[in-house]
Amino acid sequence: MSTPGTPPTLADATRGRILFGGDYNPEQWPQEVWEEDVRLMKEAGVTSVTVGVFSWARIEPRPGVRDFGWLDRLMDLLHTHGIGVVLATPTASPPPWLGRLHPGTLPVDEDGRTEWWGSRQHFAPASPDYRRAAAAIAEAVAARYADHPALLMWHINNEYCTYDYGDDAARAFRGWLTDRYGTPGALNDAWGSAFWGQSYDTFDEILPPRRAHYLRNPAQILDFRRFSSDMLLECFRAERDIVRRHAPGIPVTTNFMPLFFGQDAWEWSRHEDVVSVDTYPDPADPHAGQYQAMIADMTRSQAGGPWMLMEQAAGAVSWRDVNRPKPEGLNRLWSLQSVARGADAVCYFQWRQSRQGAEKFHSAMVSHAGERGRGFLETKRIGADLARIGPRAAGTRQRAEAVILHDWHAWWGSAQEARPSRLVAYEDVLRAWHRALWEAHIPVDFAHPAQDLDAYRLVVVPQLYLLSDDAIDALVARVRAGATLVCGFLTGIADTDDRVRPGGMDARLRELLGIDVLHEWWPLAEGERADCGTFHGTLWSEEIQPAPGARAVASYASGELAGLPAVLRHGNARYVSTLPEPEALRGLLEDAAREAGVAPALDGLPLQVEAVRRGPLLFVLNHGRDPVTVPVPGTHRDLLTDTEVREAVRLPRFGVAVLDPV
Amino acid sequence: MSTPGTPPTLADATRGRILFGGDYNPEQWPQEVWEEDVRLMKEAGVTSVTVGVFSWARIEPRPGVRDFGWLDRLMDLLHTHGIGVVLATPTASPPPWLGRLHPGTLPVDEDGRTEWWGSRQHFAPASPDYRRAAAAIAEAVAARYADHPALLMWHINNEYCTYDYGDDAARAFRGWLTDRYGTPGALNDAWGSAFWGQSYDTFDEILPPRRAHYLRNPAQILDFRRFSSDMLLECFRAERDIVRRHAPGIPVTTNFMPLFFGQDAWEWSRHEDVVSVDTYPDPADPHAGQYQAMIADMTRSQAGGPWMLMEQAAGAVSWRDVNRPKPEGLNRLWSLQSVARGADAVCYFQWRQSRQGAEKFHSAMVSHAGERGRGFLETKRIGADLARIGPRAAGTRQRAEAVILHDWHAWWGSAQEARPSRLVAYEDVLRAWHRALWEAHIPVDFAHPAQDLDAYRLVVVPQLYLLSDDAIDALVARVRAGATLVCGFLTGIADTDDRVRPGGMDARLRELLGIDVLHEWWPLAEGERADCGTFHGTLWSEEIQPAPGARAVASYASGELAGLPAVLRHGNARYVSTLPEPEALRGLLEDAAREAGVAPALDGLPLQVEAVRRGPLLFVLNHGRDPVTVPVPGTHRDLLTDTEVREAVRLPRFGVAVLDPV
Amino acid sequence: MSTPGTPPTLADATRGRILFGGDYNPEQWPQEVWEEDVRLMKEAGVTSVTVGVFSWARIEPRPGVRDFGWLDRLMDLLHTHGIGVVLATPTASPPPWLGRLHPGTLPVDEDGRTEWWGSRQHFAPASPDYRRAAAAIAEAVAARYADHPALLMWHINNEYCTYDYGDDAARAFRGWLTDRYGTPGALNDAWGSAFWGQSYDTFDEILPPRRAHYLRNPAQILDFRRFSSDMLLECFRAERDIVRRHAPGIPVTTNFMPLFFGQDAWEWSRHEDVVSVDTYPDPADPHAGQYQAMIADMTRSQAGGPWMLMEQAAGAVSWRDVNRPKPEGLNRLWSLQSVARGADAVCYFQWRQSRQGAEKFHSAMVSHAGERGRGFLETKRIGADLARIGPRAAGTRQRAEAVILHDWHAWWGSAQEARPSRLVAYEDVLRAWHRALWEAHIPVDFAHPAQDLDAYRLVVVPQLYLLSDDAIDALVARVRAGATLVCGFLTGIADTDDRVRPGGMDARLRELLGIDVLHEWWPLAEGERADCGTFHGTLWSEEIQPAPGARAVASYASGELAGLPAVLRHGNARYVSTLPEPEALRGLLEDAAREAGVAPALDGLPLQVEAVRRGPLLFVLNHGRDPVTVPVPGTHRDLLTDTEVREAVRLPRFGVAVLDPV
Repeated sequence: MSTPGTPPTLADATRGRILFGGDYNPEQWPQEVWEEDVRLMKEAGVTSVTVGVFSWARIEPRPGVRDFGWLDRLMDLLHTHGIGVVLATPTASPPPWLGRLHPGTLPVDEDGRTEWWGSRQHFAPASPDYRRAAAAIAEAVAARYADHPALLMWHINNEYCTYDYGDDAARAFRGWLTDRYGTPGALNDAWGSAFWGQSYDTFDEILPPRRAHYLRNPAQILDFRRFSSDMLLECFRAERDIVRRHAPGIPVTTNFMPLFFGQDAWEWSRHEDVVSVDTYPDPADPHAGQYQAMIADMTRSQAGGPWMLMEQAAGAVSWRDVNRPKPEGLNRLWSLQSVARGADAVCYFQWRQSRQGAEKFHSAMVSHAGERGRGFLETKRIGADLARIGPRAAGTRQRAEAVILHDWHAWWGSAQEARPSRLVAYEDVLRAWHRALWEAHIPVDFAHPAQDLDAYRLVVVPQLYLLSDDAIDALVARVRAGATLVCGFLTGIADTDDRVRPGGMDARLRELLGIDVLHEWWPLAEGERADCGTFHGTLWSEEIQPAPGARAVASYASGELAGLPAVLRHGNARYVSTLPEPEALRGLLEDAAREAGVAPALDGLPLQVEAVRRGPLLFVLNHGRDPVTVPVPGTHRDLLTDTEVREAVRLPRFGVAVLDPV
Repeated sequence: MSTPGTPPTLADATRGRILFGGDYNPEQWPQEVWEEDVRLMKEAGVTSVTVGVFSWARIEPRPGVRDFGWLDRLMDLLHTHGIGVVLATPTASPPPWLGRLHPGTLPVDEDGRTEWWGSRQHFAPASPDYRRAAAAIAEAVAARYADHPALLMWHINNEYCTYDYGDDAARAFRGWLTDRYGTPGALNDAWGSAFWGQSYDTFDEILPPRRAHYLRNPAQILDFRRFSSDMLLECFRAERDIVRRHAPGIPVTTNFMPLFFGQDAWEWSRHEDVVSVDTYPDPADPHAGQYQAMIADMTRSQAGGPWMLMEQAAGAVSWRDVNRPKPEGLNRLWSLQSVARGADAVCYFQWRQSRQGAEKFHSAMVSHAGERGRGFLETKRIGADLARIGPRAAGTRQRAEAVILHDWHAWWGSAQEARPSRLVAYEDVLRAWHRALWEAHIPVDFAHPAQDLDAYRLVVVPQLYLLSDDAIDALVARVRAGATLVCGFLTGIADTDDRVRPGGMDARLRELLGIDVLHEWWPLAEGERADCGTFHGTLWSEEIQPAPGARAVASYASGELAGLPAVLRHGNARYVSTLPEPEALRGLLEDAAREAGVAPALDGLPLQVEAVRRGPLLFVLNHGRDPVTVPVPGTHRDLLTDTEVREAVRLPRFGVAVLDPV
Repeated sequence: MSTPGTPPTLADATRGRILFGGDYNPEQWPQEVWEEDVRLMKEAGVTSVTVGVFSWARIEPRPGVRDFGWLDRLMDLLHTHGIGVVLATPTASPPPWLGRLHPGTLPVDEDGRTEWWGSRQHFAPASPDYRRAAAAIAEAVAARYADHPALLMWHINNEYCTYDYGDDAARAFRGWLTDRYGTPGALNDAWGSAFWGQSYDTFDEILPPRRAHYLRNPAQILDFRRFSSDMLLECFRAERDIVRRHAPGIPVTTNFMPLFFGQDAWEWSRHEDVVSVDTYPDPADPHAGQYQAMIADMTRSQAGGPWMLMEQAAGAVSWRDVNRPKPEGLNRLWSLQSVARGADAVCYFQWRQSRQGAEKFHSAMVSHAGERGRGFLETKRIGADLARIGPRAAGTRQRAEAVILHDWHAWWGSAQEARPSRLVAYEDVLRAWHRALWEAHIPVDFAHPAQDLDAYRLVVVPQLYLLSDDAIDALVARVRAGATLVCGFLTGIADTDDRVRPGGMDARLRELLGIDVLHEWWPLAEGERADCGTFHGTLWSEEIQPAPGARAVASYASGELAGLPAVLRHGNARYVSTLPEPEALRGLLEDAAREAGVAPALDGLPLQVEAVRRGPLLFVLNHGRDPVTVPVPGTHRDLLTDTEVREAVRLPRFGVAVLDPV
């Protein structure tokens, strides 16, 4: 239990364990299955389950009529068997009656099309009717279960993600803009409304960026993205305040979708007690392990410490075109990788695979094949593993000396309708740079660009299209103070209003990076590769005139840019004007890390092996299908096998060792 | 004329002939062309034409004002020249005034967009206003022409195919659901509404599956597909009853689109006197001949005997991206193939190619090139051929000992938004299996899974995602009684409510097929091939644990499934867990057929030659561009050439022989 | 100044110069930037700028409240510095208040979706409210600046291009149809409404071709395209009349998008004093130089003399997927090419690159890099070049002996939903044929098919799907009178109502071209090539029966058409039934030109060098990246370098010589 007066944390829920469990939807099953469920949960070492996420229509089948009996029985049953509950407010899926009585609660898309009930997330976040009804049901749930002994955590709503362009949204957007800008003149200035004659005389004239004849105002779209994230955040905070009032010692979370475009997760994280995330890498993606690592690094950075893996799939999902299951061992590998990278909870959607509904082909801890299925056997193995490492791992922290700067506003700004190249996707660039560091085995955090960077010796900026003046000043200062910087293209182009900086790129950054004149961008076509002498670049190239004192680390070797710098170095700052192929980008970052004195987690690691230090432990994970022997200096005990490991550890396919120094 | 008291049949229209003709739309032409038309029709041996399909606005130019004069003249003219009439109710294309006066008669799509007049099929089948107006015009047409001596058949509407998500549809859907389920609770149970909190408190809350934020409830969509087929069927039956009342001896049909997703043609066929179909294989498709054969087999099975080819193209259609004409001889080949496979009518859209309108580039029996065009020369040749074979072929039947099970509800169920693989398309799988049998020259029927299968020694189930308990019991019983079964993947997964069977596949089927545990599906990516040792599989693979007594006929040879069965055999049942490449699937089915004692139509046939027995006749068809000599034991007379054929027949490119035993 | 009583022309604005400048939007910039602008304009030799295009909201921030102060200051400032003004009516982008007060002014698309404000061109051209407001603001602008000494030209609206399917459009469409047809019967006949039963009883029943269930009536769509062009033209003419009334001596233009589908530019040009165009070839397209030439030839033909290049990009645009800048020299090359082909004005969108708004990544004469950027250096060079050649080039004319027939109505007619091949795109075919002539260095005009063709010895018809009787008669007469004709496929198929001609192609044309029977079209699949013996055809092939006296110049060599003519010759007419590969089509046209006595602009030119004669001058342009020496008989002075050129000129990469005979 948390100290009175200070907000609760994940530790108040884990209580020294790694939580293990999943979404549990017993309303889909007859009572006799509940009994089997708790038996199998105990067999698998499940510590906790998430309950009630989609239960609004069950709890309140008609306006104001509430039925909690089944949930009372469930909470008691779980508690009886020692299983904790992460209890959700059920506001992600309003009952059909809400949309029928209050059509304004339904979202409307940018083309004016209503999103009807019959799915989920059919709520307009700015709708006063929705907010009123959501607050009432949250209040009822909180009041009833605040003191239930099974309660471990509150889970607000689910994967907040709606955009709404309807009339309630228009009204709220006007209010949000009035707060931001004060006068139409200030708004017109920020939006550059003079372009194409879009100036507004009053706030009443403003609309969400609905369907238009041609390109819409990018600053309007940027602000609408900010507004949309804020509207959802208001919904979250309203419900958080309700449950917190009833149960001040119980931590509150909402589950992010990883690197989700619609929410500024830096801002959101500040309002959560626990940062949690749902992650669904594609088992068919050969680089999925790195993706999973990136999400872990990002979520840990948002949490500032241990975080919660709220949802993953035991096997296949059902929403891709082709949905592969996880081969033997992969579920375990990625679960332990999450713990290695800071997770104190390893959970799933969902405990038992549904027989009906839109996700009945989404895998679960107990699959359709039942307890004899391969899936459940792996579930039990993971539960046992987590129990073994929990006491040494839970609550511990880790730190990195390298950091990747990342910002939703920069992403939102860059994703405009008309831009130099639609092939440049922020998330792909971010992932390419993280992959380079991951394959170099260099531990890395993520940070908001305006965050204090003093702890980091290597600062990596894959791409930050827009940056505030403060962020630029801080970054420049940190580099001047000795940090090594590696900066990718399309960085520092605009200010926070999406106003292009004089010269086409911020002058302070140009000076830092040694760019005298940025003449032209030369984006590359699909599949085109720019010959840079020692490597090939993709996606982008640039016609830049270096400043005196800057030198080309690599130069374009042919074409219109022949002889111009591809990678420019100026002091301890490097500018990379293309996206180098993976090995080349890795090499660039290895060089920079070496120079900055930033070391990999372990020396001599093969490419497919990941090593991560957390607290006292060293996790070694084999992402390959071939067994491998990894040198590990010193003597350790492998917590998973309870065997001693000297100087080297042998890992089978997808094998993991969790090494505790002896 | 049919026996009083029993419903009329196709024989009442054919009267011992193979009908030959097409849609005839003289309202597009001046009177002088009508005269040329009947002259050319007689020259071509046309027996009958379909009239009035799109004549509503012509007959009733404004509400209640009717003009039948032109149609009276036309009917008389045709009768005078001995040409029969298939007379349509013109309800597929309401006049502009109907939509203008009653906007509710216009369909609305799932995004809420109205489908306006100015095309065709702009009617909402559940609209009371539409139904009232359609009944009135059908009544007027029936009353006027019931006793006309030219009348051979009634043709109701045209290619029924509208989906409607509007408010009339919503009301009717609620009524349909109330009839089906009685209470909201029963509906919630059938739909698994507990998932994502979609439970309905009253039927009034239910909508068609309109646009939603994310995945919609698949059971709701399945029921909406059932409902939509039923709404159209209600429209058909209402008009059928009207014309039948006026002319009890005249058979009634409506023309199906082949393997059309929107109509449960098994159910519809029960309500027709004549089963007819429109088929438009692509001349550019090298396997179009097999497609045509499949549609013929399916339509014959629906009809339970002779059927009517209501529409085909003499040459090119106009709705594909690239529309190829039929090369010399192909129209004739496919026309005779249809007769071989049971058609007693070979008709076209349309008699004379339109000069105006949306289908003026669709070919016709008389093309834009006129009577000197290659098209009309082939038309005349086909007319003459049909006249030669009609007396021996018309009304005869044929039977097969192999059967393919096919069901619309299984198709509807399988086509859900989120599923293991969107690459798996039911119709493609069905076609692949039929192709294997066609290339093996094995005669085959189609049957509904709940149909009596006693007549068949080889039962083939390409894929039946959902099956009723009765269908499963009957299938198991038939196999236990000695039939050979070959069953493809994704069969028996769900019950008729789309509820996944325990274990992920029906236990009775698993026992029959020798599957102990179905661990995981491993759908294959686009272009991926699974090495199965002696062949390659596509689309799908599976991780199954065989039961004792089952043995692998083929096994996966590499990858995660190496060593697991790809084709499993258990007694006289085989389970095929992938889609083998064409030759391999053919080989599998040839083995099974041999074992079942099912023989090809003729021995020693080359791949491109099709042989079909119908009544006393043996049709031999060369689908190849090279001449071929085909051994045919015994002595026959070729009805087309009136020559004697001993032991072998020589067929030119696209050549056909219709052999009558001497 | 123009002679009183005759309309003004471009010469009234150029006054012996080649105009050089661009769109200038000072409302986006603070006053101090204006001062820098005029300094840089003078440095660059700018003669004139286009002002006010998107200034409505700035001039009239709320209904009836007008603020001209800033524009007064700007006009005076420009005039003070000797820079002329092309002044726009700002009606392309109404202020937000107009849509808010009068929602009917917003366009509605064919799916019923509103196009909201927040972009540009959000006006419904048939809306009476829009027209009233547009007339008022045009009146105010014209009244205020008619006599301003800086005023050179009026620029009405901008890139007219809206389609509207809303209720105002429906009303206006009915009126337009009533004018065209008089009675519903005549309309039904023209539209072939009998097809699919679409007959209209009154004009009130008619809608724009909105979303429908299936294919819409192509004649209705064709008329709607005519109507839509006419509605926009009515808007243009109304504003033109207003400004002309205030300033009779000032020429009026509106800027076309090149080869834009929505405007019949032949008709529009008749109503303009100056024909101007915006052209944006893709620098990444290796054939962009030819495209630019084609647009120049077409615009010159519309203007009947000198024309205005209103907009081009100094470097990259921002609306393509990948936007390449122009490499060093390309902007200059294409600018001088435009002058070579008749332009008397070389202008840009825009003068100074915007920092905000939807097109801030669109290049400009002064780019983000500013006056040190490569872009501005090239701007200055072009300004100096134009000043050098202006006195000898401005106002001069040129003529060709070859002509390409082109017609919007034929294009509109051909672009129907259902057609033989959707791969056949009119604009691509047109461009392929122009490219053949361009690569053959043959000067060419464009002409409307009903235009007098007496001046031309070689008539080229790439594709004219529909043709009027008059046009056919004139074409036949011209060929009978001795002109050489080369005619592509899909020509003369339909009359002006989109009614297919008897025989599938007009009989007069068939006779002229030597086609006895047109049996079938055989469109080719994507990537398919038809072997024609000496070359390959693409896109299309045909089964034609030649008339006696016609001979095959080339024949299909394999496939179903083996032995049939691919290119047919009959007297001095050739029919090309496929799209030959580029070299083959060039060869065909070279042969025809030689026979017609039509010579290239210069003999012995390499492929990448373009030569054009204008007035006394010979322009020689190197489109290649390698230097080249071009033989030029005689002695000339190169106006650009002021050097003498004897017998040959050496051109660097992208180099140009403007040769004046000595």
